[in-house]
Amino acid sequence: MPRFSVSIHIVPRKGLLDPQGKAVADALHALGFATVADARIGRHIVLEVDGESAEAARAQATAMCDKLLANPVTEDYEIAAVAGG
Amino acid sequence: MPRFSVSIHIVPRKGLLDPQGKAVADALHALGFATVADARIGRHIVLEVDGESAEAARAQATAMCDKLLANPVTEDYEIAAVAGG
Repeated sequence: MPRFSVSIHIVPRKGLLDPQGKAVADALHALGFATVADARIGRHIVLEVDGESAEAARAQATAMCDKLLANPVTEDYEIAAVAGG
Repeated sequence: MPRFSVSIHIVPRKGLLDPQGKAVADALHALGFATVADARIGRHIVLEVDGESAEAARAQATAMCDKLLANPVTEDYEIAAVAGG
């Protein structure tokens, strides 16, 4: 079966506090980067998935996000790209 | 000044151990996702940056990665997208 590289973005849901992003924005300001208005920090996951097609690999990755990778209460996820095959 | 949304991917450098990715791959296997060959986990950062142009915002984000956001010893970063303005 061909192998696909699936990129996933998992980010804190909009409207929820993102203390890590707040800390990074404050640190950037302290370093003199005054142009930063906001920072939000999530996870970037790259999975190597074997599948019949790019669509199958994407469906597998979506199931993995639902079951393990993303917290459905506090996070949103997006399959950013499916490459290879 | 217009505001740009800059997406950054920071990933463990290729060839370095990624224990978090290994743990996720093992957990996915335990859940029955046998098609996953590998998982690598990095950070997805979205910055809201004020700048004269998209190029200026990208240059600012690159400087931030060099100075604070990425560990130059163990991580690679990539400015994935600059949107808005």
